[in-house]
Amino acid sequence: MTIPTDPETGEFKRAPNRFTARITADGADGWPAEAGRYRLVVSRACPWASRALIVRRLMGLEEALSVAIADPIQDERSWRFTLDPGGRDPVLGIEFLGEAYRAADPDYDGGISVPAIVDIPSGKLVTNDYPQITLDLDTQWGAHYRDGAPDLYPEALRDEIDEINRAVHRDVNAAVYEAGFATKQSAYDDAYRRLFARLDELSERLAGQRYLVGDTITEADIRLFTTLVRFDAVYHGHFKCNRNKLTEMPVLWAYARDLFQTPGFGDTVDFDHIKRHYYQVHEQVNPSRIVPGGPDLSGWAQPHGRADLGGRPFGDGTPPGPPPRHEVVPPQW
Amino acid sequence: MTIPTDPETGEFKRAPNRFTARITADGADGWPAEAGRYRLVVSRACPWASRALIVRRLMGLEEALSVAIADPIQDERSWRFTLDPGGRDPVLGIEFLGEAYRAADPDYDGGISVPAIVDIPSGKLVTNDYPQITLDLDTQWGAHYRDGAPDLYPEALRDEIDEINRAVHRDVNAAVYEAGFATKQSAYDDAYRRLFARLDELSERLAGQRYLVGDTITEADIRLFTTLVRFDAVYHGHFKCNRNKLTEMPVLWAYARDLFQTPGFGDTVDFDHIKRHYYQVHEQVNPSRIVPGGPDLSGWAQPHGRADLGGRPFGDGTPPGPPPRHEVVPPQW
Repeated sequence: MTIPTDPETGEFKRAPNRFTARITADGADGWPAEAGRYRLVVSRACPWASRALIVRRLMGLEEALSVAIADPIQDERSWRFTLDPGGRDPVLGIEFLGEAYRAADPDYDGGISVPAIVDIPSGKLVTNDYPQITLDLDTQWGAHYRDGAPDLYPEALRDEIDEINRAVHRDVNAAVYEAGFATKQSAYDDAYRRLFARLDELSERLAGQRYLVGDTITEADIRLFTTLVRFDAVYHGHFKCNRNKLTEMPVLWAYARDLFQTPGFGDTVDFDHIKRHYYQVHEQVNPSRIVPGGPDLSGWAQPHGRADLGGRPFGDGTPPGPPPRHEVVPPQW
Repeated sequence: MTIPTDPETGEFKRAPNRFTARITADGADGWPAEAGRYRLVVSRACPWASRALIVRRLMGLEEALSVAIADPIQDERSWRFTLDPGGRDPVLGIEFLGEAYRAADPDYDGGISVPAIVDIPSGKLVTNDYPQITLDLDTQWGAHYRDGAPDLYPEALRDEIDEINRAVHRDVNAAVYEAGFATKQSAYDDAYRRLFARLDELSERLAGQRYLVGDTITEADIRLFTTLVRFDAVYHGHFKCNRNKLTEMPVLWAYARDLFQTPGFGDTVDFDHIKRHYYQVHEQVNPSRIVPGGPDLSGWAQPHGRADLGGRPFGDGTPPGPPPRHEVVPPQW
């Protein structure tokens, strides 16, 4: 995997997403939200893709929107379906996610990223625009939500959610990558400082309230969670985000455990995929490709004590049931 | 720096020490323990050299045996005196420690390691045999010890000290390097397992007694300390010894803090030298050479509560005074 960094500043620059069509209730972009029509392609290793996995679980979209789980180890052709029989996704019939990208644009030669949503009939990629993908899963699939599905993007709170999402993206979700992929000390130092300053601020915010915005789980919590759940397993050591472990930040650690133990969050997490992906794919960071034995993960199951803060996790809704049998991840420790 | 690993097993193999003459009270090897005759060359980054720094402080040998502090960053010519004016050790008059090796053996082309003791009049290396160097500093410099110097290698306890030193060497001191320098997963896994199994055993042993052997500080504590003090700063992340941090092993963390706060231990430690050495010299492990901002080190000053276990740190002796003014390390956090 080639990591694009600025030769002058040593800063990691994430490429913009090329495919930005939206799947919506009204189908304005030509892609109406229809049950059974699309396939969500993810890696359980990837924090951006894992957001979509969580939203899909919380909203009960497992039947309406099926999922393809890519091998956590990409080769030079990027994400591949080597976990499936014959190395081929059984629904899309392709070996590499890149095939769906090229079906949509034969001249495409940019990066291949997850999450990606593919139109099953045509085999064409519809979107890899991860920030919009979850917002649309939150709001555009009305006919297909489960009974008791929460409102993850409440109208009245959108400005506040958008604002915190911007800060969390810049200083947490993206900053861990900017620390880990930096090729110059100054670029690393800048990302490290922003990251821990923001985590300290979030700790203060979350000391007195159970969730980031309002008193229920929202899109903002999902975006913070997918970075926090990877923090000690990969970002702390592999990406040098090591002022302290998540387990040493009491408020954030309890907040993350609370979400992990909420149906729809922890049941999407595969630490084996996460560790193997980061340590084996980023050879520029870890030339030996050795995967560490640690950390001890059993603390994720410890009581979090956050219920005392109040909050209504699903608002007027209810927690989702267990994941479909074929999507259950193996025991994690 | 080239890291020698076995191409078949991926195991790191430390080269044996070539220069093994002893400096003794009776001068049997031709090198009598004389004040002012020798120069101890160390890096504050190096755990093997730091043992000698601690013994020298505890025994009060600062006047009798002067010290040269090498730059923590070696170049292709190995340890160098670039911290000194003109890039030259003011006593030996050399720029590179390798010059003393070649003064002793013009044909020598092996590794250049610290600790090293150099005969000042001839400029020749006497010994780089680190396990023997501290035992001889413990026992052979009788005429030059300070008043109140402890007995770090008591006759009656030597078998027990030697036995625990062997286990600590194999499974702790050396195992962290074997984990970090492994080039195959199996070699790493083996080192990781031995390391944490041994640390768990040492935790049990130290839960009820203040020091490893007897009720006073001995050579055994010094050898364990120099690895523990580097654990969270470098071994946890850089060498993937990440089941948990030292700060997450309560007994060993309190034990290490107790020693750190004992005069002669913490005052020899320079975390800046330690971090820059490991992260910048081992390019095979860390190609970017970026030095992490963490970990937060301030916990080293926290109360350790180990005095309740009894023990007499210096036996019938007393703690050493402060280090000589020109050897004081800068504030560490």
